[in-house]
Amino acid sequence: MAFRLTPHERGFYPLFTRAAENIASAADDLAKLVAAEPSGRAEIAQRVKETENAGDSVTHEIMVKLNSTFVTPFDREDIYRLASSLDDVLDYMEEAADRIVLYRLGVLPGGISEQVEVLRRAAAATSEAMPRLEKMAELQEYWIHVNSLEDEADAVYRRLLGDLLAPPDGDPPADVLTVLKVKEIVETLEEAADAFETVANTVESIAVKEA
Amino acid sequence: MAFRLTPHERGFYPLFTRAAENIASAADDLAKLVAAEPSGRAEIAQRVKETENAGDSVTHEIMVKLNSTFVTPFDREDIYRLASSLDDVLDYMEEAADRIVLYRLGVLPGGISEQVEVLRRAAAATSEAMPRLEKMAELQEYWIHVNSLEDEADAVYRRLLGDLLAPPDGDPPADVLTVLKVKEIVETLEEAADAFETVANTVESIAVKEA
Amino acid sequence: MAFRLTPHERGFYPLFTRAAENIASAADDLAKLVAAEPSGRAEIAQRVKETENAGDSVTHEIMVKLNSTFVTPFDREDIYRLASSLDDVLDYMEEAADRIVLYRLGVLPGGISEQVEVLRRAAAATSEAMPRLEKMAELQEYWIHVNSLEDEADAVYRRLLGDLLAPPDGDPPADVLTVLKVKEIVETLEEAADAFETVANTVESIAVKEA
Repeated sequence: MAFRLTPHERGFYPLFTRAAENIASAADDLAKLVAAEPSGRAEIAQRVKETENAGDSVTHEIMVKLNSTFVTPFDREDIYRLASSLDDVLDYMEEAADRIVLYRLGVLPGGISEQVEVLRRAAAATSEAMPRLEKMAELQEYWIHVNSLEDEADAVYRRLLGDLLAPPDGDPPADVLTVLKVKEIVETLEEAADAFETVANTVESIAVKEA
Repeated sequence: MAFRLTPHERGFYPLFTRAAENIASAADDLAKLVAAEPSGRAEIAQRVKETENAGDSVTHEIMVKLNSTFVTPFDREDIYRLASSLDDVLDYMEEAADRIVLYRLGVLPGGISEQVEVLRRAAAATSEAMPRLEKMAELQEYWIHVNSLEDEADAVYRRLLGDLLAPPDGDPPADVLTVLKVKEIVETLEEAADAFETVANTVESIAVKEA
Repeated sequence: MAFRLTPHERGFYPLFTRAAENIASAADDLAKLVAAEPSGRAEIAQRVKETENAGDSVTHEIMVKLNSTFVTPFDREDIYRLASSLDDVLDYMEEAADRIVLYRLGVLPGGISEQVEVLRRAAAATSEAMPRLEKMAELQEYWIHVNSLEDEADAVYRRLLGDLLAPPDGDPPADVLTVLKVKEIVETLEEAADAFETVANTVESIAVKEA
């Protein structure tokens, strides 16, 4: 007890867990969105937007707590960076959902579902890892797992972009405006995958310092 | 006096103020550029280029001072990051101005003026905040303000890109090469808005440490 | 000897040197790739891929050593950042090589060879600088040199993109899908140039702290 200067210290952990739960919920909705009929997309995208707003509130709570807490469980800057990178993941997901609706696309290429499926798995891994942050337990498996998911996302992304710009023999080329729209969405989803890796790298660098 | 090891310490503040003043001046020119006739653009873009060169000199002065100063007013790394992010803002603005000329575009979509107007306001806010860095006064309003301007810039950016790629019913679609050119400019301006947010986040993280 | 807590400490330097040598080797192959006939590209791209795999192993070795070393030659975070940014350079080079093959492009615009030539020089400068990291010798010339190469790369990149989107009078415009493909490659090479600058900036910030 002598070393516990403030009860606030441990309050960061539930907030990181909530941030990751929001991400997992948005990833589930994103999977529903890309599987839905075009007419049903707007409603699901609206739900992703609301989850992103909830995520912004959690980020804000973390920042306020950071301003009012004297002793933090790990470096202030790492708390800041972890909160920001979790926030980025949700931002990219919401941006992808918004663009799918905004660009009024018809059928999406199948590769987009694959991208979203990898995001869903990265979200689940992140959501399971956050509650272990307090005890710094089994985090290495988490970041190795997310790094390998990012490799997988990258492979899907490259193939998808290749097929889009240089359709395999026999496929008719899409019209160029459609190519541009799909390319934007595919790139935004890839940015979400990269952002998961940044979260994992931040956790890794926290763990390295604590070791 | 006993605690003042070197008179250099305070010399950083006027440099950050000058960096922000250059940004405000470039933002004003950018507003003139997007309002000008195509034939008058090159001359204004040249002025933005000169302001960017002046900005590079200020960045260089900050880095040299950082190398030769023993006691800095805040973390060396934060000085480095603040100087770099101010430099980035000006780089993106110059890049946008250069592209508008280089791509020989005719009339620009109205949304581009809106983007530039938000940049102008972010530049004014940054320019007013920098002189308050020394006393760490009223900085929270500044970063909240810039964050909300970035939200505004983001909304304009999304709408602009949506209208460009999926023109509202009734509008004739632009030819695809024009779409690509406008998209590049719109994205570069959005990067400038993001860079303002990075400046604000850096100031926030300095203030958090000092608190 | 009293101050040498562990013999591992110096083991980081050869790893950074190896990372930079891999980059130099990939840059040489990339130059061969853009000079080769389309039919000979896949084989060279495969070699770049293998070099990138070798680079990943070096990055991994650095991270493992970071986890198991008590006293590091400079800040843990800087070691982490230097390793990551060297890794990024090689990633972008491999991505560019992969895209040139994947998009099945015919003759490449001449400007792409210029971009790769600048990368080759940045790679050589980086490869020569890494062995000097241990003695912190002549590093300033290195980072000034790389920063000026990045300026050069930026100028080539802008001209190339300008010619692509707004062909000089008299040139026939490329078809838009080809424009998109070339644009992706040109942008990826520019990202490699930026990543070299990040490596140089990281070295600069290490040197600033050590000074």
